[in-house]
Amino acid sequence: MSRIIYLDHAATTPVDKRVFEKMKPYFTELFANPATRWTSSISKKVDEAVEEARKNVAVLINALPEEIVFTSGGTESDNAALKGVAFANKDKGNEIITTPTEHEAVLKSVESLQDFGFVIKYVPVDRKGFVDPDDVKKLITSKTILVSVIHANNEIGTIEPVREIGAICKERNVLFHTDAVQTIAHLPVDVEQMNIDLLSLSSHKFYGPKGVGALYIRKDVPIVPYMNGGGQERGFRSGTLNTTGIIGLGEAAKLGKKEQKQRENSIAEFRDIFLAKILEEIPAVYLNGPEGDRRLPGNISIIIQGIRNEPLLVALNEKGIIAGGGSACSAGKKNPSHVLQAIGVPEEDLFSVIRITIGKDNKKEDIDFIVENIKETTNQLRALSPFWEG
Amino acid sequence: MSRIIYLDHAATTPVDKRVFEKMKPYFTELFANPATRWTSSISKKVDEAVEEARKNVAVLINALPEEIVFTSGGTESDNAALKGVAFANKDKGNEIITTPTEHEAVLKSVESLQDFGFVIKYVPVDRKGFVDPDDVKKLITSKTILVSVIHANNEIGTIEPVREIGAICKERNVLFHTDAVQTIAHLPVDVEQMNIDLLSLSSHKFYGPKGVGALYIRKDVPIVPYMNGGGQERGFRSGTLNTTGIIGLGEAAKLGKKEQKQRENSIAEFRDIFLAKILEEIPAVYLNGPEGDRRLPGNISIIIQGIRNEPLLVALNEKGIIAGGGSACSAGKKNPSHVLQAIGVPEEDLFSVIRITIGKDNKKEDIDFIVENIKETTNQLRALSPFWEG
Repeated sequence: MSRIIYLDHAATTPVDKRVFEKMKPYFTELFANPATRWTSSISKKVDEAVEEARKNVAVLINALPEEIVFTSGGTESDNAALKGVAFANKDKGNEIITTPTEHEAVLKSVESLQDFGFVIKYVPVDRKGFVDPDDVKKLITSKTILVSVIHANNEIGTIEPVREIGAICKERNVLFHTDAVQTIAHLPVDVEQMNIDLLSLSSHKFYGPKGVGALYIRKDVPIVPYMNGGGQERGFRSGTLNTTGIIGLGEAAKLGKKEQKQRENSIAEFRDIFLAKILEEIPAVYLNGPEGDRRLPGNISIIIQGIRNEPLLVALNEKGIIAGGGSACSAGKKNPSHVLQAIGVPEEDLFSVIRITIGKDNKKEDIDFIVENIKETTNQLRALSPFWEG
Repeated sequence: MSRIIYLDHAATTPVDKRVFEKMKPYFTELFANPATRWTSSISKKVDEAVEEARKNVAVLINALPEEIVFTSGGTESDNAALKGVAFANKDKGNEIITTPTEHEAVLKSVESLQDFGFVIKYVPVDRKGFVDPDDVKKLITSKTILVSVIHANNEIGTIEPVREIGAICKERNVLFHTDAVQTIAHLPVDVEQMNIDLLSLSSHKFYGPKGVGALYIRKDVPIVPYMNGGGQERGFRSGTLNTTGIIGLGEAAKLGKKEQKQRENSIAEFRDIFLAKILEEIPAVYLNGPEGDRRLPGNISIIIQGIRNEPLLVALNEKGIIAGGGSACSAGKKNPSHVLQAIGVPEEDLFSVIRITIGKDNKKEDIDFIVENIKETTNQLRALSPFWEG
């Protein structure tokens, strides 16, 4: 295969070459454990690089460096936030509010809390995937300790009214967590303006390495450490620091801050041209989620009626085009997407969805080639399909 | 500083250059998410490399590949093993047996379980840090669900009689976990021969990258997943796989398997020459933990009476020699080591301990230089010390 057009950036991104260059010396040369910084000169250098990374992550979301805790990724951050807050606040109340369209790291974490007496309330979403802040308000009681609403949906790209929800939580004195894995460095995120108490982010969704992420914990938020041990990260997260990962995350955050607006604009332009073209060229294609500014700039989720997504994706892959199904985490599973079900996608269309997620290095010149290939394969598959009567 | 002699390998090791070479392509080129292996050719290649790594880790400890779950490191593996087994078996009983000389990842994890009704029993250790298997036997009751004993102590190098303890657990139908972070690739480890049900390991202790480890879970061991989410790792550990880390861990495991005996021999020889020389050259120096075959090949923990370890370590660092205090995790903390306290080190000696941990690339020609520098600095510090009347 000569050239690859990668369109699955919501699943993961390549490490930016500048990020990798920054990480390199810390594998074989500056390898020491930053915990021994008081007595070792190599450790001191590593510690300084880690703290520089922490600052870069803090700046990206307008937090303080001491409010950033490094984790192994978005899933750990979600687990740590939800379980940590639940157990620390169980004397105050046992109710947690979330949505049916969260990432599974949130959904399965809150489900696991039910075994410990916590009650989970789900705020409904509309046909485009939006939460109404008023519905959150209505669900809050004196027993509510935490609200968790995803910043933007990983499957259908819906950007939730996080700022309004945060304001309601602040007013009602309830903690507010958001999974911002899909928006960090893609959209402006400001924990102050958005009234966010806890925020999960993952490095590999914005050109950093895999296996590292962060949890923002606003100062004085009551939380129990999720991972126990040597007391690293001021006791919030034990375990030897993943120095190379953290330094990569920090560099990706720095570049993300600098290039965010430019990336957002060019990616949203790609999205809108692509979407207009595909809706024009192929009949019976429907967009999941909203259009325009309330949609993630890089996300396109479409139903292509009458076909199954798997053979389409396999055929595209053979032509060097890599796109996605529902979400990377659900890939290879037989269950339909809980997000598509929650927004009311008809049962017969649940496996006819492809997700195209655009990255900063995609080229607008390729749009025609991509659309042409999707169209051609769709026509071939529809011709063979018992579900398609054209 | 021209040349560095690194003697803190129990804190962390450099990534072996061969390991780094193996990892390299997976950052910027073969970066895809292995979860999408069914529809993407890049993902398929990454998935194959991950599964090769899993095999290499399995072979190293004589397990099956499907019994290996990748984690973010030793601390996560310990948390996942202890909490996962406790919650999965709470209907059978609520007692967990461990030792006072475990790594803090084990100690703090079991402490956190007390809030959920679990009772922790501590089997005593003797003056060299050894557990007597008979003492474990005596503590087991019908309510005991799990025994966790460290394979070899990270501070004082004591190798516990894990095989005998495993046999007792097997006989009594109690699950057995061992934290083998310090022994993997340093000593032969065989989960079958040693009757181990769960084993924690960490890549960066044997020349792999930081931020990745594994938990061995024997087939059919009842365990609840610690990290909830997308269901990766057959549901045992959610979160996008840290592909570069896992591939590095796999290569380190492969090299560790091949070179284990040779490393063990040369490192133990270094240890014994060094120890003989330092005991001969400096008065009032005492070894913590046992001598010979029941001690980790690379570990030397000594009390140098009349001095504090921190100024000694700082002075050595200035001469290019990097050694450690009690343990990396406790570095910079004011608390005395729980391990040294448990083996009865007198209070006045608790901060007079240095830990020298030898690696595969240390050179025996350097021993004289190291001993000479420790001697010289010790003499200088003792001359100034109010605690030394030598």
